[in-house]
Amino acid sequence: MSKTFPADSVGLVTPKRHFFDEPLPLDSGRELPSYEIVYETYGELNEDRSNAILVCHALSGDHHAAGYHSPDDRKPGWWETCIGPGKPSDTNRFFVVSSNNIGGCSGSTGPSSINPRNGKRYGPHFPIVTVADWVRSQARLADVLGISRWAAVIGGSLGAMQALQWAIDYPDRLRHAILIATAPKLSAQNIAFNEVARQAILSDPDFRDGYYMDHGVIPRRGLALARMLGHITYLSEDAMRAKFGRQPKGSSGKLSYSFDVDFQVESYLRYQGQSFVERFDANTYLLMTKALDYFDPAAKYDHDLSAALAHVQAKFLVISFTSDWRFSPARSREIVRALLDGDKSVTYAEIDSPHGHDAFLLPIPAYLDVLRAYLNRVAEESA
Amino acid sequence: MSKTFPADSVGLVTPKRHFFDEPLPLDSGRELPSYEIVYETYGELNEDRSNAILVCHALSGDHHAAGYHSPDDRKPGWWETCIGPGKPSDTNRFFVVSSNNIGGCSGSTGPSSINPRNGKRYGPHFPIVTVADWVRSQARLADVLGISRWAAVIGGSLGAMQALQWAIDYPDRLRHAILIATAPKLSAQNIAFNEVARQAILSDPDFRDGYYMDHGVIPRRGLALARMLGHITYLSEDAMRAKFGRQPKGSSGKLSYSFDVDFQVESYLRYQGQSFVERFDANTYLLMTKALDYFDPAAKYDHDLSAALAHVQAKFLVISFTSDWRFSPARSREIVRALLDGDKSVTYAEIDSPHGHDAFLLPIPAYLDVLRAYLNRVAEESA
Repeated sequence: MSKTFPADSVGLVTPKRHFFDEPLPLDSGRELPSYEIVYETYGELNEDRSNAILVCHALSGDHHAAGYHSPDDRKPGWWETCIGPGKPSDTNRFFVVSSNNIGGCSGSTGPSSINPRNGKRYGPHFPIVTVADWVRSQARLADVLGISRWAAVIGGSLGAMQALQWAIDYPDRLRHAILIATAPKLSAQNIAFNEVARQAILSDPDFRDGYYMDHGVIPRRGLALARMLGHITYLSEDAMRAKFGRQPKGSSGKLSYSFDVDFQVESYLRYQGQSFVERFDANTYLLMTKALDYFDPAAKYDHDLSAALAHVQAKFLVISFTSDWRFSPARSREIVRALLDGDKSVTYAEIDSPHGHDAFLLPIPAYLDVLRAYLNRVAEESA
Repeated sequence: MSKTFPADSVGLVTPKRHFFDEPLPLDSGRELPSYEIVYETYGELNEDRSNAILVCHALSGDHHAAGYHSPDDRKPGWWETCIGPGKPSDTNRFFVVSSNNIGGCSGSTGPSSINPRNGKRYGPHFPIVTVADWVRSQARLADVLGISRWAAVIGGSLGAMQALQWAIDYPDRLRHAILIATAPKLSAQNIAFNEVARQAILSDPDFRDGYYMDHGVIPRRGLALARMLGHITYLSEDAMRAKFGRQPKGSSGKLSYSFDVDFQVESYLRYQGQSFVERFDANTYLLMTKALDYFDPAAKYDHDLSAALAHVQAKFLVISFTSDWRFSPARSREIVRALLDGDKSVTYAEIDSPHGHDAFLLPIPAYLDVLRAYLNRVAEESA
């Protein structure tokens, strides 16, 4: 069965993987004895290897950022709106690399992998990984790909934290850092939401102290709750009102007078929770939320973000969305201010959008225009 | 062991209870065959019975609004800041009545009571109750107390919804309605938070379809999660930042690199969740959230709040708090606007406070001043 992909899609893509035999030291003091990273690439690396872009994924994302894995796929990669021929990350001009973070559940070494040191599944013993650990692992992937300097490292949310960490830890290895819908560290409220999500998973009897796979079960209830809660923070109040309001679930409009679903927003959340369980791993969810909580590059610099950014060489594009209450524009402006305080080059765009945090995944014209214009400039430098 | 209570406290109080033998018809179409209401009173009813104030409690509140149940009590009632001699609800001038809502878990008939029709504990069979049902039951309590007209009905959050419903359903039975930190109906986001809380309880294996008491267990995990989540919505982001920031839990400041508590906000939430389980009932929590979700007095009037308020006779005081994101000032202004559209008497105060929704329970001077001034006027009318 053949199918034609849209002309502006990268079309059929096949994930690649690389096995790293060398141990990876981690911020926790532990190490991964060896590890595998699964990644995808779109477009062609040019001769002087100057046109490579690294895309970093967010909490529940993966390496499949663009195109299709099979002609039967109903959905393309998670950033199809941004990556492809003629799109902002123009694959006619850029070589785009998108890798799955270690600790993930989509192919890179993670909690469901076998620990080579004892032949057992890592499960709850998989080490806590940090944004800096991911960046360290991505730098090795860059070495393998022969990319000494990225034209840009780009990401949204937790992905943007990786781009920021790249600029700090490898100042001479990226020309641009593009940070979308992010924060220089989590607020107490952000951490609080993550903690409730973690407790939902940890307290699910089927979590079995993280050994659920060995018991052939899944902490479905906890993981679904975590996702439902996450979804509330991804949508703005206005977006929820526009999408659901108080619309009743059934056509009768009658209240159930039970704990069944009465309003559409309830059935939406239940569906989001249930479907997430089918594709995501609970141990990975715990790891990702902890990486978010721990991210705080200024901590080592006496909580002075400008000091943390003193040695960055990359030029920055920072984008925020007006109705994002998970990482509000004020949080992006903290980064912008710290960069300006250090006389760094930074472009800041605050995009008017009612879609909350999720906006970074959506085809919002003003947003894509900013990305396109900026990346067009990056491409011209690379040419 | 004797103890002196503060001079501005009502001191030692003893809850009263009244058994209603007459069935209570409910909005659901079901009825309670009989029921008991537990309540407290502070101050003295004057001769013409014109100085009575009804205080309505919020989600996790109860009838114990002021004073102490025993000399050993560490804490007074939940609204001690507002009720007492010389306080805004001045018990030297007012007769204050505070009753526990049916469906509750503090003495009034609720899920843990015995259904007289079959001699079994109600458990999950306790009917869904609405704000209007509570008001109907409170009107009967007023009859018993010989109060044909309240000087004021007053409440915060879900309590304020009862005050609003009173004004709509019994226009000639209250002179004033005082609504604090509330909304004319829940938003999709409000409902979403409630739904996640309910799912946490319903999906806890120890919930046992609501028969947990018969099995001698408690859905501790689910109820704790629900409370943790609730607490995030009661505090403003600023309040959380001021209270916890990213302060580490231990004195070392070192990250645990585990799923243990790293930040103070995590241990605060865990504590709130655990201690709530000791004092609150899961079936009641479910009922209360559903009463919140269902509250929508305009629904019967083609979603026209002014029409719903067309026949109110009470004068209104509406108070909101700037940093309340559960029921923001904009939600209070919806009520104020609807009242003004109908040429009703309304005083509106938006109190500058960083404390989020919880502000309505706190001794904020500007807030207490507004209440005091307004209630002083009410008292003069009653004298």
